[in-house]
Amino acid sequence: MEIPYTKMHGLGNSYIFLDLFSFSVEESVLVELAKKVSDINTGIGSDGLILIHPTAAADVGMRIFNKDGSEGKNCGNGLRCVAKYAFENNLVNKTQFVIETRAGNVTAEVFLDGDVVEEVTVDMGKPTLNRRGIPMLGNDETVISEAFEVSHHPLELTAVSMGNPHAVFFVEDIDEAPLYDLGPLITNDERFPEGVNVEFIEIISETEMHFRVWERGSGVTQACGTGACAAAVASILNGYAQKDTEICVHLSGGDLFIKWAADGRVWMRGKAETTTTGTFYWKR
Amino acid sequence: MEIPYTKMHGLGNSYIFLDLFSFSVEESVLVELAKKVSDINTGIGSDGLILIHPTAAADVGMRIFNKDGSEGKNCGNGLRCVAKYAFENNLVNKTQFVIETRAGNVTAEVFLDGDVVEEVTVDMGKPTLNRRGIPMLGNDETVISEAFEVSHHPLELTAVSMGNPHAVFFVEDIDEAPLYDLGPLITNDERFPEGVNVEFIEIISETEMHFRVWERGSGVTQACGTGACAAAVASILNGYAQKDTEICVHLSGGDLFIKWAADGRVWMRGKAETTTTGTFYWKR
Repeated sequence: MEIPYTKMHGLGNSYIFLDLFSFSVEESVLVELAKKVSDINTGIGSDGLILIHPTAAADVGMRIFNKDGSEGKNCGNGLRCVAKYAFENNLVNKTQFVIETRAGNVTAEVFLDGDVVEEVTVDMGKPTLNRRGIPMLGNDETVISEAFEVSHHPLELTAVSMGNPHAVFFVEDIDEAPLYDLGPLITNDERFPEGVNVEFIEIISETEMHFRVWERGSGVTQACGTGACAAAVASILNGYAQKDTEICVHLSGGDLFIKWAADGRVWMRGKAETTTTGTFYWKR
Repeated sequence: MEIPYTKMHGLGNSYIFLDLFSFSVEESVLVELAKKVSDINTGIGSDGLILIHPTAAADVGMRIFNKDGSEGKNCGNGLRCVAKYAFENNLVNKTQFVIETRAGNVTAEVFLDGDVVEEVTVDMGKPTLNRRGIPMLGNDETVISEAFEVSHHPLELTAVSMGNPHAVFFVEDIDEAPLYDLGPLITNDERFPEGVNVEFIEIISETEMHFRVWERGSGVTQACGTGACAAAVASILNGYAQKDTEICVHLSGGDLFIKWAADGRVWMRGKAETTTTGTFYWKR
């Protein structure tokens, strides 16, 4: 089977994109196909597969499948790539449009250099600060600078959900953050019944911070869009930054610019890049 | 810069192939390009880059660059892919032909299913059994079932060079082989001044064996062509198999068929597969 694809990445978080406006693929093979294209040895190599599809509910639809074949709900880095693809391939004819995801409709806006989309801003929705909504066990309503001990290390935890749970910890020096020591312990800590993404943050100023993440199910990654949003929200909750002001978050894979707007929504701005287009020869 | 490429693999050992019969790329950018295309995050994703180029010295030439940008001399899995590519893309018009490598000229033969190359046999050259040629420190001329202690584990070592050094150990049960425990110790053992690839072999019969490898500089990999050759040679040296008879070697990534011919040359037969063709957009 010959499958036309585009490979794109946002801050090194890479996906294989199939354009279902011009190509069709059966639902029953998607899990197998996602595993196959993601495989660097016998496939192409990526963090997963994203389908860009027509939909009545928005300007364009997306579905995301992880490397292991499981279907995800949303992915900030993938969303920026979908927006770039949709605009550059004339699936939409305006610079601000709506993308349907499994987590709901999302507004995206593209910023151009000539015909090329250089940056994309996406609406990452409202954070959930309510403990049950994160979800996390315990008594208080919110989790802001709460004492949190892991393996005899006393930490202060701020917990935020951006549709997925995040545990944010502030450190003095990002290079000394106990990412590899405590990341795997915290992500599986029983106080988070659905697991948690673990972020360490070094505040540089009110508008700039360093960021490192241990992603739930993935370990250390170069970038996590929802994590950058959670980190910005946690910084504002702790008085390190302001609402309605863009904060530059330095991730290993590059920079994201996060704004927690006065209306409660979180906006993420960042790059999306196309690395390759081609045909995948799928031997089943 | 738009770069046309083909991605192929032999037993999961994958490379990005550039056809310099129809495209040119400057020598000065090769190291950077090899690193870039190999990168699963911001490039395509592979174990390295292989150039297929015209040459006066053979029917077709190849150069191989590893993931880290260093230039390699030869690679059995890559060679089979080059042979498949050259035949299917009419760079050669015969089924047996000569490929120039940095380690010398190599004869290859392709086996067809219609127009498609299903398998390739390549001449892997003569093994070096001489201790100095491997290279390994010590006194005896050859290293066949020699007592070899590592971290208080008494082992029996057979050492073979196939252009690169191999330390072969026979085990009763391949699933119990101390690959992760002893592989990293043996590969850096000071008795091998240039390091060594470490192979554990379970003999099934005179014509069949299981194989696991810790590759020098790479760790555990799915397949190692020269390692499979070294394992077959070591088996014959120890009386477990016969010369001039094809031995099926079961690697994690698939099977290779190795024959140590009466004239001293080692022949390797195995599959090569094309996974994708496309255009790589290189932003420097």
